[in-house]
Amino acid sequence: MSTAVAAVPDAALDAFAAALGDDAVLTSDTALREYRDPFSFASWDDYTAAAVVTPTEVEQVQDVVRIANEHRVPLWTLSQGRNNGYGGPAPRVKGSVIVSLRELNRVLEINEELAYAVVEPGVRWFDLYDAIQAGGHRLMPSIADVGWGSVIGNTLDHGLTYLPQAQDQAAWCGMEVVLPNGELMRTGMGALPGSKAWHVYKRGLGPTPDPLFMQSNFGIVTKMGYWLQPYPEVYMPCWLRVWNDDALPQVVDTLRGLMLDNTIRNVPQIVNIVLVAAVVSRRDQWWDGDGPIPDEVLDKIARELEFGRWMMRFALHEDEAVADLKFERIKRAFERIDGAEVWGTKCAPEDAAALENPHERVQAGVPSLDLNEMAAWDGGQSGGHVGFSPVAPMTGADAGALRELLRGKVEGAGLDYMAALIATNPRCFVHITLIIFDTENEAKVRAAYDVAKQLVRECAQRGYGEYRAHLDFMDLAAEQYSFGDHAYRRFNETIKDALDPNGILAPGRHGIWPKGMRERQNGA
Amino acid sequence: MSTAVAAVPDAALDAFAAALGDDAVLTSDTALREYRDPFSFASWDDYTAAAVVTPTEVEQVQDVVRIANEHRVPLWTLSQGRNNGYGGPAPRVKGSVIVSLRELNRVLEINEELAYAVVEPGVRWFDLYDAIQAGGHRLMPSIADVGWGSVIGNTLDHGLTYLPQAQDQAAWCGMEVVLPNGELMRTGMGALPGSKAWHVYKRGLGPTPDPLFMQSNFGIVTKMGYWLQPYPEVYMPCWLRVWNDDALPQVVDTLRGLMLDNTIRNVPQIVNIVLVAAVVSRRDQWWDGDGPIPDEVLDKIARELEFGRWMMRFALHEDEAVADLKFERIKRAFERIDGAEVWGTKCAPEDAAALENPHERVQAGVPSLDLNEMAAWDGGQSGGHVGFSPVAPMTGADAGALRELLRGKVEGAGLDYMAALIATNPRCFVHITLIIFDTENEAKVRAAYDVAKQLVRECAQRGYGEYRAHLDFMDLAAEQYSFGDHAYRRFNETIKDALDPNGILAPGRHGIWPKGMRERQNGA
Repeated sequence: MSTAVAAVPDAALDAFAAALGDDAVLTSDTALREYRDPFSFASWDDYTAAAVVTPTEVEQVQDVVRIANEHRVPLWTLSQGRNNGYGGPAPRVKGSVIVSLRELNRVLEINEELAYAVVEPGVRWFDLYDAIQAGGHRLMPSIADVGWGSVIGNTLDHGLTYLPQAQDQAAWCGMEVVLPNGELMRTGMGALPGSKAWHVYKRGLGPTPDPLFMQSNFGIVTKMGYWLQPYPEVYMPCWLRVWNDDALPQVVDTLRGLMLDNTIRNVPQIVNIVLVAAVVSRRDQWWDGDGPIPDEVLDKIARELEFGRWMMRFALHEDEAVADLKFERIKRAFERIDGAEVWGTKCAPEDAAALENPHERVQAGVPSLDLNEMAAWDGGQSGGHVGFSPVAPMTGADAGALRELLRGKVEGAGLDYMAALIATNPRCFVHITLIIFDTENEAKVRAAYDVAKQLVRECAQRGYGEYRAHLDFMDLAAEQYSFGDHAYRRFNETIKDALDPNGILAPGRHGIWPKGMRERQNGA
Repeated sequence: MSTAVAAVPDAALDAFAAALGDDAVLTSDTALREYRDPFSFASWDDYTAAAVVTPTEVEQVQDVVRIANEHRVPLWTLSQGRNNGYGGPAPRVKGSVIVSLRELNRVLEINEELAYAVVEPGVRWFDLYDAIQAGGHRLMPSIADVGWGSVIGNTLDHGLTYLPQAQDQAAWCGMEVVLPNGELMRTGMGALPGSKAWHVYKRGLGPTPDPLFMQSNFGIVTKMGYWLQPYPEVYMPCWLRVWNDDALPQVVDTLRGLMLDNTIRNVPQIVNIVLVAAVVSRRDQWWDGDGPIPDEVLDKIARELEFGRWMMRFALHEDEAVADLKFERIKRAFERIDGAEVWGTKCAPEDAAALENPHERVQAGVPSLDLNEMAAWDGGQSGGHVGFSPVAPMTGADAGALRELLRGKVEGAGLDYMAALIATNPRCFVHITLIIFDTENEAKVRAAYDVAKQLVRECAQRGYGEYRAHLDFMDLAAEQYSFGDHAYRRFNETIKDALDPNGILAPGRHGIWPKGMRERQNGA
């Protein structure tokens, strides 16, 4: 399956150019280079596109889909294609035509009273933030760590963001979708012409299709509502620091209680010293030996940067009096852990953009590229990573078990263990593991991919499944979800074949293959 | 379509009996009477079943589905069938075989640490509450107003409940489903054998199918996770009362602000005097004239019962100090409205079961049948109602416009306007309109159905769609969701035909008909 290759007939390229204009069909090597996995080893070309088309209107997206059906051309859609660590903009099937929605990029509405925006797929965190500021709205978007990503693209990949309205990845509301047959559908209340509730109520009458368009290949989302947070009286970014690597389970157990009782209601991130150090320094400043950075050096980094072995970032968005009460409760709860410290600083929401620390800006919805620095940890400009990200219940026992397994395997492969446990809701966390390498060092790149694939199986055997999978092991990851002799896969395939009989839309995305390309195999 | 009739061959009934046992196949008139719409006029028989089967194990549900496929028998599933006001247990297609899941009724797990339960479809609010109490768990379920309903059944119908974890109807997590072909599928992380995160993370890898099984006929849900609320330090049921019918818009605008900033985080209910009076009195105590109760009598009821023209019930589940701050803020905000009063009483969560007022028990997850009294407003034991329930953005302007329209039409039909605006999330409310009648008065029954159908069209024209529809006008309600020349309906039909080629599962539910039974028609 990983060697699936498509060939795009010239007639199809001509038809795309006729519908979209010559400038909207890119086939040059230079143009295509930008749409490769940014972190793959340079000579690998499994996941490369034959062409890129760039529609600017919804009708053009419908045209592209109709032409693809006519010529049986596999498409691969991206909104911005910034899901670096999972393959970026690259297509699963070599020779696909990428449908880049980067130029379908209007912020269509910002409703201050009801606190939502409506965006097209090319709208980045930067663009949404700018539009809110330009309109003078006292609203905060929930954003990802790096500002260049797409609001819609991130949502469709189950990506994580950090403001309260995005707990449980639930900030989306109401979509418009181009179906594989070229029809335009609106979901939820949007199916009612002239609906007033499209972007305030997630359902309509009948089943809710929206989550079916996430991590799938059943349609191209062209509009989406996104809930915003009205400015609170105070914004208070906070930190927890622990000096002992083994304090992680206690941190997680304490956090669960504070989230279940709504004391902390944003999406906290618990990061280890390697990850937090990578934002402000480079690996070779600390260690030039073989293999992973040893424990005593990690302790030294923790001390010198004053980050501790684990830090947790979180934030309060509250009335000032409530923030004060909550902060005291949080401090009391965490400081029962030996050596733990909690601190935070209140600021007016309108001043959040001036905060020096990018982590503190992110939790107020202020985007930047500063946190992308972590990608340069090993190798600088040529630094890269693969994401391996299992989900676990929010218990200290699960956090401890996963840390043991992941750290052991990653370090066993000679690489550093870079971890962020993200509490997407009060009951679970996603353990983002950035397996990092210098992309110019093929041995390290291979070791990283190999250990990631090994972890897919090992974690699944222990009951921890991936929340999102890299292009190169999407099939392997999906293969683990095998209950009932793969009933879920067959269910997806049944829907895929019914909606997209020609199999033109994003074949292979998250393990879903159309009829014509299916061959059973045991993972990658 | 409304006259669709099925005939069940004896061979099918024999096969059901062979698989489930003779006692599990009911065909007597006495048995079937219990499965009719409880509020329909006695002589109407459009929605009556030919038989009822009562599986007690998941495997038996699979058997039923396989037999139905073999004999092309339309099934109609119910968990408890208590969605009175929308048709109760009655099937859409006359002559269907009801699959009653009332005896598949185990509480399979209660996880106190992670605050969730796993239930089978027959588990009622009563059963879940009892299981939590029996286990000594300090947890509250989010429940509906009347305790006899099913946790799963209510969730699958997009039903509303009132605790914080159920805002946006989001307390479900992880399902097991018997598909129309008899296969058993687990959703989300449950598709991973031995998954630890099935009931703590709503997604898996790939698209999330769960919402596809709500208000649809794509599968039979046999297990579901349901999030619970750990006991807060204090539970504080609260009330708002306004004396002027026209204060509604101000109430709604104020509430929106208090929900968007997380001050109120449960699901408040704004009810008019008729609805709140119906719980404690009967219509004929107040009025025996023709037509709807006049305004001056409504004012009199409001004064005598001390309920005001509108009351809002809501509750705080907080640390005591936070509850005190929030209560003061809420009181300050609402008491800007002329004549408005706010009050509340703190209680220990373990004492909530002893509260006298059933509204105050419900918001702590303590079920009863007390609130079902409202059904007896007109006609006592023979009292009934039809639910008409559009969704609107949470603005005073929308609340005012809907009240005008609905009150005008319902009273114009000679009936009382009984209203509950339920704020399912900070951005919208569902305007539950109980159109009430004495079921023994055929003229009133007909008037109620007629005005409900008229309202479906009138509200849709103004951009307000129904969140749930009565059996008798499901088609009409679904017909309104017509964007893109009914793209959403075709999408559902495509999935229906792919998953259920024989069209055996709940044909017609929420307007989705299988291929063999489709005929286009404009509404009812």
